[in-house]
Amino acid sequence: MVAYPHRHLLALQGLEPPYIADLLDLAESYALLNRSGKTQRDQLKGRTLINLFFEDSTRTRTSFELAGKRLGADVINMSVSQSSVNKGETLLDTASTLNAMHCDLLVVRHAQSGAPALLSQKVDAAVINAGDGTHEHPTQALLDALTIRRHKGALENLTVAICGDVLHSRVARSNIHLLSAMNCRVRVVGPPTLLPAEVERMGVEVFHDMKSGLRDADVVMMLRLQKERMAGGLVPSAREYFRFFGLDAAKLAVAKPDAIVMHPGPMNRGVEIDSAVADDPVRSVIGEQVEMGVAVRMAVLDILSRNLRRNARP
Amino acid sequence: MVAYPHRHLLALQGLEPPYIADLLDLAESYALLNRSGKTQRDQLKGRTLINLFFEDSTRTRTSFELAGKRLGADVINMSVSQSSVNKGETLLDTASTLNAMHCDLLVVRHAQSGAPALLSQKVDAAVINAGDGTHEHPTQALLDALTIRRHKGALENLTVAICGDVLHSRVARSNIHLLSAMNCRVRVVGPPTLLPAEVERMGVEVFHDMKSGLRDADVVMMLRLQKERMAGGLVPSAREYFRFFGLDAAKLAVAKPDAIVMHPGPMNRGVEIDSAVADDPVRSVIGEQVEMGVAVRMAVLDILSRNLRRNARP
Amino acid sequence: MVAYPHRHLLALQGLEPPYIADLLDLAESYALLNRSGKTQRDQLKGRTLINLFFEDSTRTRTSFELAGKRLGADVINMSVSQSSVNKGETLLDTASTLNAMHCDLLVVRHAQSGAPALLSQKVDAAVINAGDGTHEHPTQALLDALTIRRHKGALENLTVAICGDVLHSRVARSNIHLLSAMNCRVRVVGPPTLLPAEVERMGVEVFHDMKSGLRDADVVMMLRLQKERMAGGLVPSAREYFRFFGLDAAKLAVAKPDAIVMHPGPMNRGVEIDSAVADDPVRSVIGEQVEMGVAVRMAVLDILSRNLRRNARP
Repeated sequence: MVAYPHRHLLALQGLEPPYIADLLDLAESYALLNRSGKTQRDQLKGRTLINLFFEDSTRTRTSFELAGKRLGADVINMSVSQSSVNKGETLLDTASTLNAMHCDLLVVRHAQSGAPALLSQKVDAAVINAGDGTHEHPTQALLDALTIRRHKGALENLTVAICGDVLHSRVARSNIHLLSAMNCRVRVVGPPTLLPAEVERMGVEVFHDMKSGLRDADVVMMLRLQKERMAGGLVPSAREYFRFFGLDAAKLAVAKPDAIVMHPGPMNRGVEIDSAVADDPVRSVIGEQVEMGVAVRMAVLDILSRNLRRNARP
Repeated sequence: MVAYPHRHLLALQGLEPPYIADLLDLAESYALLNRSGKTQRDQLKGRTLINLFFEDSTRTRTSFELAGKRLGADVINMSVSQSSVNKGETLLDTASTLNAMHCDLLVVRHAQSGAPALLSQKVDAAVINAGDGTHEHPTQALLDALTIRRHKGALENLTVAICGDVLHSRVARSNIHLLSAMNCRVRVVGPPTLLPAEVERMGVEVFHDMKSGLRDADVVMMLRLQKERMAGGLVPSAREYFRFFGLDAAKLAVAKPDAIVMHPGPMNRGVEIDSAVADDPVRSVIGEQVEMGVAVRMAVLDILSRNLRRNARP
Repeated sequence: MVAYPHRHLLALQGLEPPYIADLLDLAESYALLNRSGKTQRDQLKGRTLINLFFEDSTRTRTSFELAGKRLGADVINMSVSQSSVNKGETLLDTASTLNAMHCDLLVVRHAQSGAPALLSQKVDAAVINAGDGTHEHPTQALLDALTIRRHKGALENLTVAICGDVLHSRVARSNIHLLSAMNCRVRVVGPPTLLPAEVERMGVEVFHDMKSGLRDADVVMMLRLQKERMAGGLVPSAREYFRFFGLDAAKLAVAKPDAIVMHPGPMNRGVEIDSAVADDPVRSVIGEQVEMGVAVRMAVLDILSRNLRRNARP
């Protein structure tokens, strides 16, 4: 096994393929353990894991909480509504507090891009970015990659179409970095108003039309329409959006016959995805994505915890 | 011991007496363990218990959390305010998520009658209904039954008066099913506006007057006045309600001299019950109900967990 | 070791020096264990610790949660927003509920002075006051004392200046009691409107001017400006307050050259304390206070738990 070279997991941009493959291999072994129901291990016994969520997220918070508990960590949830943030405490004072409490693993979600990276400079803990602004959401892309690998055997040379609101999507950004590193052909598909200006420089193919973008794709990855992040912008009507960019059987028909359908959840059914496609037992792997999420987070916590031991605190 | 025949605990309606007795016996043994302070066991070690509460409830949520932790489960709380429900996720998508996370035991409270049953069709986990709309609240009726049995020796042939807001009470419904199955004489007592239309078909005696309804009763079970559920109806004034239907010493005097007083909590003191009666050290068993609540939930989690092992996942 | 003589920890007023020293010694040993990363012990295995917070507090709640988990307790968080308090349940009914659940250690924060003491009369659990109104916050004063002792070798004969909003500060009150008992010279420094009327009878020196109050002090303890508690009073402007009572390098210069700077957190930077002082790596011990907080709470939980064993329930 190749040792993951960082103290933290803040982004996938720049992470080299052997480290990605290594993380996925370990996650795969945890996925098998979880399925067998024999997951109670003590890799994280005596470790303190803090879930520091400045934005709400049931799935991601629960997934990390489960991953930590299954590995034996003491898990503490700190959500923004209960937090000193309300009393005007700065992010760095929060960091200092967590440090003093000897937090080992710090999972951070924050509305501001870069907040986890800022925290990581101030804490002894290993920091895991659980989604920051429109920047990255690395464990989501890892779980997506693991899910793809389980269905396609390998990541290399696949055509992956990432569709919808790429502009506001940290999930899309992390996936573009990971999939590009693993030699996938990545396409982004969406209306020009929902694609970021820098998309041309990301090494991806750009489509504004679903039928062109999905043609012969191996993987169709739908994104959540992030209405809550569309401040001041033109919010498309759900009906209109669905007609042009919602994934239904007709649009999916142009992809490869064995193409899989993904969504990071929670879904807006009838907006970015049709229920018949979302619930298709053969094509849709959306449930498996959630399952792989726990496994990937166990792997990440395990690996970062080993690195903590290796590089003890100053 | 007779094996409980279901995967889930969704309702008491139709559950046969031997299974009820069996659950109560196991709960009694947990009650004794809890009192001795020797409750740390590992029946649920490696199991994941998720408390999925779409309605707030300190008592019930805490009771299940304690029960799960005392048996060694990994317990995760998911409350509605932190939940994806806010983002428009459907109940069934939530089910699919919980499934993918390999949740073993799922405790559900929901404002809609039938929501736990719907979830139970979609998850591999054993589902425990922790109160759904005006339908049922099975563990409450089980803890009530255990409390009664500890004081009266047996359930058979007792006269139990269930008093107050029966219309909005899932507690009343579960109790009527359980107590009728165990051959109690069940009476419901309340103003006609707070009794359900179907009460005549429930095999109970109906009274609109406390003194008639409580005469010679062995058990007086008061219900919480569910003001929060009275939308559009005629809300009685607290003073007027107390005068006619609040339990005080005078009204209690017509019950048997050793009649016990019960309340599911939290109490509206001075509305449905007088403080002197609620705090009567001999007649009131309200504190013991809470204590039996933890024991009953341990028994339910234990039994459902054994059934999971017996009928492994497909 | 001298056995702590009480079932509960409700206040430091009246607690005699040997018991304080004893608590600090045990906390010091936990501090060393925490630093070494070898803190997973099972002193509280099988114990139920409930954090009952009627007021929000990230730091204190997290600190107790960590302390309890590191000692192996089952920890349950009950925050006011999820609590039956919303349904009109009385404090004493909550006590009765917790009792019935066999709670062993009950950590209480409440906006009303005396609420933890009231609860302690009704529960079998050992109650720890985690801050009640403007009364006391004993574990905060204990962690402050431990931090001082680590830097000054002993508490005796030190000059400690407690500065700012003493009127609304339970932290100040607990510190005055503890430091006076340990033979410190205690000064309070603040504008007359933010000092309590009874300050003259507290055995402390009173100053209305920072330069006089800080002269030759060994310890400068800043308080948080409790804007949220100033109802109806004259709220000073932040700028004006900082000019006269905010701690900056110029005001600190009159204290002893090795004086340490403390703050219970969360800080209002630029209001009661200047960032340069708060972040001074030599003078500021604010991070260490948080660290000692976990250690002190472990010691308190450990000692109260031993007393529970010694004096078993009736």
